[in-house]
Amino acid sequence: MSSMNITHTLMAKSMGVNSHHELVAFMRSDCHVCRSEGFEALASIQLGHGEHTIIAKLYVVDIDQLDADTVGLSHAAFAKLKLKGGESVKVTHAPVVNSLSSLRAKIFNQPFSEIDLIEIVGDIAKGHYNDIEISSFVTACGGDRLSIDEITWLTNAMVKVGEQLDWGTTPVLDKHCVGGLPGNRTTPIVVSIVAANGLLIPKTSSRAITSPAGTADTMEILTRVDLDLCRLRQVVKSTGASLAWGGSVKLSPVDDVLIRVEKVLDLDSEGQLIASVLSKKIAAGSTHVLIDIPTGASAKVRTVDAAENLSRQLIEVGKRLNLKVETIITDGNEPVGQGIGAGLEARDVLKVLKGEGDAPENLKERALTLAGLLLEMGNKADKGQGKILATNTLDTGKAWQKFMEICLSQGGLKQLDNTAHTYSFEAQYKGVIKQVDNRKLARLAKLAGAPASSVAGVDWKVRLGQTVEKGQSILDIHAETKGELNYAYEYLVANEDIVIIGE
Amino acid sequence: MSSMNITHTLMAKSMGVNSHHELVAFMRSDCHVCRSEGFEALASIQLGHGEHTIIAKLYVVDIDQLDADTVGLSHAAFAKLKLKGGESVKVTHAPVVNSLSSLRAKIFNQPFSEIDLIEIVGDIAKGHYNDIEISSFVTACGGDRLSIDEITWLTNAMVKVGEQLDWGTTPVLDKHCVGGLPGNRTTPIVVSIVAANGLLIPKTSSRAITSPAGTADTMEILTRVDLDLCRLRQVVKSTGASLAWGGSVKLSPVDDVLIRVEKVLDLDSEGQLIASVLSKKIAAGSTHVLIDIPTGASAKVRTVDAAENLSRQLIEVGKRLNLKVETIITDGNEPVGQGIGAGLEARDVLKVLKGEGDAPENLKERALTLAGLLLEMGNKADKGQGKILATNTLDTGKAWQKFMEICLSQGGLKQLDNTAHTYSFEAQYKGVIKQVDNRKLARLAKLAGAPASSVAGVDWKVRLGQTVEKGQSILDIHAETKGELNYAYEYLVANEDIVIIGE
Repeated sequence: MSSMNITHTLMAKSMGVNSHHELVAFMRSDCHVCRSEGFEALASIQLGHGEHTIIAKLYVVDIDQLDADTVGLSHAAFAKLKLKGGESVKVTHAPVVNSLSSLRAKIFNQPFSEIDLIEIVGDIAKGHYNDIEISSFVTACGGDRLSIDEITWLTNAMVKVGEQLDWGTTPVLDKHCVGGLPGNRTTPIVVSIVAANGLLIPKTSSRAITSPAGTADTMEILTRVDLDLCRLRQVVKSTGASLAWGGSVKLSPVDDVLIRVEKVLDLDSEGQLIASVLSKKIAAGSTHVLIDIPTGASAKVRTVDAAENLSRQLIEVGKRLNLKVETIITDGNEPVGQGIGAGLEARDVLKVLKGEGDAPENLKERALTLAGLLLEMGNKADKGQGKILATNTLDTGKAWQKFMEICLSQGGLKQLDNTAHTYSFEAQYKGVIKQVDNRKLARLAKLAGAPASSVAGVDWKVRLGQTVEKGQSILDIHAETKGELNYAYEYLVANEDIVIIGE
Repeated sequence: MSSMNITHTLMAKSMGVNSHHELVAFMRSDCHVCRSEGFEALASIQLGHGEHTIIAKLYVVDIDQLDADTVGLSHAAFAKLKLKGGESVKVTHAPVVNSLSSLRAKIFNQPFSEIDLIEIVGDIAKGHYNDIEISSFVTACGGDRLSIDEITWLTNAMVKVGEQLDWGTTPVLDKHCVGGLPGNRTTPIVVSIVAANGLLIPKTSSRAITSPAGTADTMEILTRVDLDLCRLRQVVKSTGASLAWGGSVKLSPVDDVLIRVEKVLDLDSEGQLIASVLSKKIAAGSTHVLIDIPTGASAKVRTVDAAENLSRQLIEVGKRLNLKVETIITDGNEPVGQGIGAGLEARDVLKVLKGEGDAPENLKERALTLAGLLLEMGNKADKGQGKILATNTLDTGKAWQKFMEICLSQGGLKQLDNTAHTYSFEAQYKGVIKQVDNRKLARLAKLAGAPASSVAGVDWKVRLGQTVEKGQSILDIHAETKGELNYAYEYLVANEDIVIIGE
């Protein structure tokens, strides 16, 4: 195709447009390149600068919006071409993306081969798939259309396309929670307990995608989390653990692209969930992973059957890729801990680690269970004895010591400041807490400003089955501004079924 | 949900951005609405002005790109909100699109119900699906995943969501060609012959989507084609026919949206092809349709088996929706006529209608076959006798008279002007024309400037099986500018397998 792609040159300019990962170019309707190439709005075009090449979506702009012979670029496109401004870039028709034919074949019920998936994942990593194409891939893989073979190949291809860590030893432990449960910030506690027992657990976590907080957001309240690979290695070498943000390490980068599209579609497919979780863990150099699957009507996994099926597949795919996976199906019917939102969750984590009297009991319990299982997986305790060791590690303050050590190594332990505007939602009558809608509770915390505001969120002050008196506080909304507090309050008033109080 | 959607107001401004049908909004990163609502780049937001509401994709822009308290809009978003500029618009979170849950269910192998498809098509028509969601719908329907019931319901939903014409009489004839064959501009000839015999054939056609020319492009060379509904009725009333552009009549508008996404994916699914073709015909008020299915290795339909399967389904779905469908499987191995591109095709059409000696014989033959079948469907000729009547209508000049009458009624018959830069591609040696690649030939015509330039295209001067001498002209490239001529020439040099000459 080389000689059909006549190259045109235009001056590059940032349009000051944040389009997330989406690569967007803007060209004038009267631009000679548009005209001679027959480019139209929404066409895919290829832009090159030096050794960097991207495929971008084209918007055509009126002639008063851009200088002549200039191509405007979104932040992502500008960054990916490594531009500073004022350089000339080469503009051509986007080449045919060959891996799309195996996607079309899959739509027509032909299974993917290993090579198909390597090529597709490679093209997505290079930014050669636009959102329409990524959505088609996600949909074609949806609804259990991936066999165990295909899931394994997809996982492996996702690992291979990004950075891969190697800790030069075994076991390397890790944990993961198949999200959907507000609060549930066990990770900092679990990691501290496990590392305090001499096991290696280099944990990298994500920021919130659709939830009020991710572990990285919570940890950022307490220490620095954006470590580059070199710094991460130092922390792990000196403490045996880390509690860092995974984003700067570029593990399984295609996962982030797929997740963004899945969120738009609100589509949770098992195959892609498995590839997503396991590719991140394998890329992080883990050898033993414990996966927590909270299960309940308003959690991500809704039935025990579904949880068991997911569990089986996680274990099998892990096995094929040399990763020892164990799973635990936990209660997903109510929040874990009190705080929902980065600052409030950090407060709960500190209370548990410090052994304070008002530490949320269920957060502590769950963290001890998970830490116990990991201690068993790492051969620090016999089967069934891990939780005892974990409890001892917490009660003697060794976990808190380890946590401080990790934070200091990452950049110092920060003070909590949860100053906020608050509103307390009270029971209108005496009764028993019958049900809580986790999804709406998470939404409430987000409307109050989480995760953008670190003090924003919800303090959930009751438990399922608990009897409350008339006027007793059920939850507090925390917000940084009065406006956000009002906004969340209005949502709460319109959605009182967020918590059901019965006889 | 009403009270959770706190309404913010921003001043609307056109950003001068052509994003095709895509609804795009631009907001400043420091905008109070972005902050208080937690809007991020690529979020879906709802914009309202008076009674008009849209859901748009958000790009967040740097503060120097937009005035404070202003929301920028793409041309499509601006138009759909019926704005003039300077009005204030209401901005809220996009509501949940409920029909997406039936899409998700379909991905998990549950068939669509009739109501599901009515809701999905309705939401797409309102612009409530973004490209990611439309792509997911197209993919979930792909690969023969739609049953005959589902195809029927989809077709009907697509009809119902747009304008529907009613001619108050029967039969109302129509023809359609399942594209993919360059040239093949039979429609103006067929319509003229059929109407000259007193049958009603109100034809609306499309412009080129991915081809070098659509019938509307070709007809636009000769007369006015952008008729509104009122004008179209007048033309049909006075001449019994029309040769107009369908775009201004808004028949089956969702079809245009789906086609654009299918083109990006290069995905031809039978179910959607059938719904696309039949919804346009039913909406146009047709009662009897003849569908031409050119079949060949480089045509859209590649095998006779596939053509027959498609044919059966077209007939069955038509039957269920009270549309009499007949099909004809034709040779799709080489172009029909000489010209490929609007102006060159118009020239060929005129030659056939006027009965000129050098009229392309295969274009004439095919037009007569199709017209003959339509005359039989309309009971103007006995089975097997239609072509004789069609030939007579053409030879006696009655078709040419009717064609002129239609053009005059639409706005006058224009003169052809095919002045262009040309390059003649000659045979390098004596031999027989063994094979021609229709797709590459169409690409060549497009690179020469079609359909944007009406004189651009390719003149295909030989036929399969014909013996050519060394130096004999195989095809001429026509282009409006020297640059475009060179561009197409380079493609031809790099793709000489466009035509294979053998022993």
